[in-house]
Amino acid sequence: MQGVLDYLKQNQNRFLAEFCEYLRFPSVSAQPQHKTDLQACADWLVNHCRQIGLEANIYLTKGHPIVVAKTPRAKNSRQPHYMVYGHYDVQPPEPLDLWKSPPFEPKIIGRNIFARGSTDNKGQNFAHLKAVEAYLKTNTPLPCDLTFVIEGEEEVGSECLSGFLKKNRKELDCAAVVISDTGMPSPKHPALGYSLRGIIALEITLHGPDCDLHSGGFGGAVDNPAMALSQLLGQLRDKNGRITIPGFYNGVLPLSAYERKEYARLPGSDATLQKLIGVKKLFGERGFTSSEQRSARPTFEINGLTSGYQGEGSKTIIPSWARAKITCRLVPNQDPEQIRKAVLAHLKKICPPTVRMDIEIGHGAEAYFVPPTGAPAQAALRALEKAFGHKPILTREGGSIPIVNQFKKILGADSLLLGLGLPDDNAHSPNEKFSLDCFEKGQLMSAYLWQELGRV
Amino acid sequence: MQGVLDYLKQNQNRFLAEFCEYLRFPSVSAQPQHKTDLQACADWLVNHCRQIGLEANIYLTKGHPIVVAKTPRAKNSRQPHYMVYGHYDVQPPEPLDLWKSPPFEPKIIGRNIFARGSTDNKGQNFAHLKAVEAYLKTNTPLPCDLTFVIEGEEEVGSECLSGFLKKNRKELDCAAVVISDTGMPSPKHPALGYSLRGIIALEITLHGPDCDLHSGGFGGAVDNPAMALSQLLGQLRDKNGRITIPGFYNGVLPLSAYERKEYARLPGSDATLQKLIGVKKLFGERGFTSSEQRSARPTFEINGLTSGYQGEGSKTIIPSWARAKITCRLVPNQDPEQIRKAVLAHLKKICPPTVRMDIEIGHGAEAYFVPPTGAPAQAALRALEKAFGHKPILTREGGSIPIVNQFKKILGADSLLLGLGLPDDNAHSPNEKFSLDCFEKGQLMSAYLWQELGRV
Repeated sequence: MQGVLDYLKQNQNRFLAEFCEYLRFPSVSAQPQHKTDLQACADWLVNHCRQIGLEANIYLTKGHPIVVAKTPRAKNSRQPHYMVYGHYDVQPPEPLDLWKSPPFEPKIIGRNIFARGSTDNKGQNFAHLKAVEAYLKTNTPLPCDLTFVIEGEEEVGSECLSGFLKKNRKELDCAAVVISDTGMPSPKHPALGYSLRGIIALEITLHGPDCDLHSGGFGGAVDNPAMALSQLLGQLRDKNGRITIPGFYNGVLPLSAYERKEYARLPGSDATLQKLIGVKKLFGERGFTSSEQRSARPTFEINGLTSGYQGEGSKTIIPSWARAKITCRLVPNQDPEQIRKAVLAHLKKICPPTVRMDIEIGHGAEAYFVPPTGAPAQAALRALEKAFGHKPILTREGGSIPIVNQFKKILGADSLLLGLGLPDDNAHSPNEKFSLDCFEKGQLMSAYLWQELGRV
Repeated sequence: MQGVLDYLKQNQNRFLAEFCEYLRFPSVSAQPQHKTDLQACADWLVNHCRQIGLEANIYLTKGHPIVVAKTPRAKNSRQPHYMVYGHYDVQPPEPLDLWKSPPFEPKIIGRNIFARGSTDNKGQNFAHLKAVEAYLKTNTPLPCDLTFVIEGEEEVGSECLSGFLKKNRKELDCAAVVISDTGMPSPKHPALGYSLRGIIALEITLHGPDCDLHSGGFGGAVDNPAMALSQLLGQLRDKNGRITIPGFYNGVLPLSAYERKEYARLPGSDATLQKLIGVKKLFGERGFTSSEQRSARPTFEINGLTSGYQGEGSKTIIPSWARAKITCRLVPNQDPEQIRKAVLAHLKKICPPTVRMDIEIGHGAEAYFVPPTGAPAQAALRALEKAFGHKPILTREGGSIPIVNQFKKILGADSLLLGLGLPDDNAHSPNEKFSLDCFEKGQLMSAYLWQELGRV
């Protein structure tokens, strides 16, 4: 093991140069003009995996290719098998004018590297590759068999991944999936995520008059769909931040005393959060801390409003219709289908007879929750502590990673969420960056992880 | 007078051809590319006025020109002087794909002529010109001195008109202003309008976080500006359709018993109105008929809503801000300044501390109300009855014509609102039309009007 650690120490400069090569591919999965860039990035990745000693191949899909890379393994190996999941596609870099340096020309400032995809997810995933390289290049026995699955469609819904999982179920059969695609509160608070929120999406349109009406000629005698929508939505949340839809909290797994203690260990005050996001006052469900509200409680969020005239100046109309885009974050153990039904039933009940309501149903995903008491989770916690030198924290994540549910359903595998991102990494935003300390410590964590998992 | 009536009867075909010429000018005042079309239209109009025997001139402004045309008058004439106000500019024709025939190529179908500007306002104003032509061309003594003021900026706020009025106050001094730029309920219900609603406009923006936030990472702990806006707006109207802002109804002139009787004479049921605008159920302030709600009661109308993501599909964000465009229709004798203050004070009071509110103040105008008991109004009623063969109705108009207040303030003159439009004329909408019956009867009405007003 000392050889592995020495190798990592000695090769950071080269790793960084390679990381920069990886970051230079504008592998924006959402934008069709980058299709060949994704192909080129996947090709580079396959070659790189081969160079470090993995058996790597491209798996073509009707979307962007999946890179699959395995550690060389003994015939009839009885070592445990883990999958390492990641993605080489990135979010669109727009708006470009807000970037301080070009998004696909990595720039190192102090101990940070700035580029689109640096934290999400190239850097986090690359740390695992470098740890495995250290084992292979120093001929140190790797106590686990590993399969890297690095896809190119995570930022656009991982559409082709479940087909791939189903087709290769046997080969991908594993003890757990290791994912570094989330965050940690600070380098002094390495974190193991054991829960993710689920989601349901819908779009509500209230239709009033056939066309926009002159507010002088008709105003006063006909309901205004924008007002009807405001009243409909406005009554869905009470003064205590509770969603008033009957059944909305059905199935919610309460926070245990232990979990609330872990939450209390999180660094950062409400004042810090307020400053970070730029509000004078936070607001959330009474009875929960802001950290709990952000990850352990369901939400009803308006993502967008559209109605009538939106240009310069004023236009004296009663709009023909008004629309709201909604997503609700769900928590363990809520059933998305049941919550969606409760929401729809309530909306139907309270919609006034003066407008006609259309609801379009969007995507949905269950929340994820695996008690961090199993042997792999305990092993991960030991690896985190060794690498970062601090006692790790157990976290519920506020976001949703729907593919985690697919790993569970198709492969029967739990996921270990070992996020290396920091709160100020600007994932999905301009000036995305990744901490070089997290990069290095992430490599260490990965190196220790296979030791720990090998003993499980 | 018989000569006038015969002349009108005999020349309808020529009048129609001239009207078509007038309609072919795309005199869209809001669109800069039509600046020369407005100039050309004004030139055509001046020439036309001269041809029919008026002393006509163009008055240049920093916007679009004003056409001024006077009847030839005796020196030291002791005849009463009336102004006839109209406008040759028109609304933008967009959306073009909804027009069944090109907006600037007049098309006659049955007894209707379809073109942008046909009812608003070229046709209505042209009827007055044709009546005066009949007097001048038959050498019938015109019992009043008339000044036509036909502007080119009515659809964009009449910005230059008040300057013109102030500068020419003496010459424009008149007994009343005759305006045919509103409507009548049906050809069997010729109407004299004696009231207009006023207006105030504002734009409310609620600011939340500095930028759109990931609803997974932050949702639950921070107020959503779109939800805050919904709650803010939603509480401003109660179940009885009353606006809940303290002081909002201050100054409202109650409907007299006589007025409510006149309202009851209006043709058309609520069922007809519902069908016309395409709603299953009307909604308005309890205690008032829909006709009363539409013209004699103040309103709080949301004209537009904007927040967050409005594109295809969903985007899981907490929007940084949410905005509503608002106009309130006011009624006689409300003070726009006072009502605006009441609205702002209430919004400030109920705005939650979790968002920052910005309010942009828009235009404002007082309502207009002149009891139709004066001699000119009575003369107008007689002219309407003679021309249309039905007892005219007295109406309060729901819309606002801010320039009417300027006539009162600058010239001290009341206005006679003798609208010739019908409810299905599609003013401001695609497939605008004008009834040829209204055009002809409007000419008759104008011819009788000068007789009646001459005797006042």
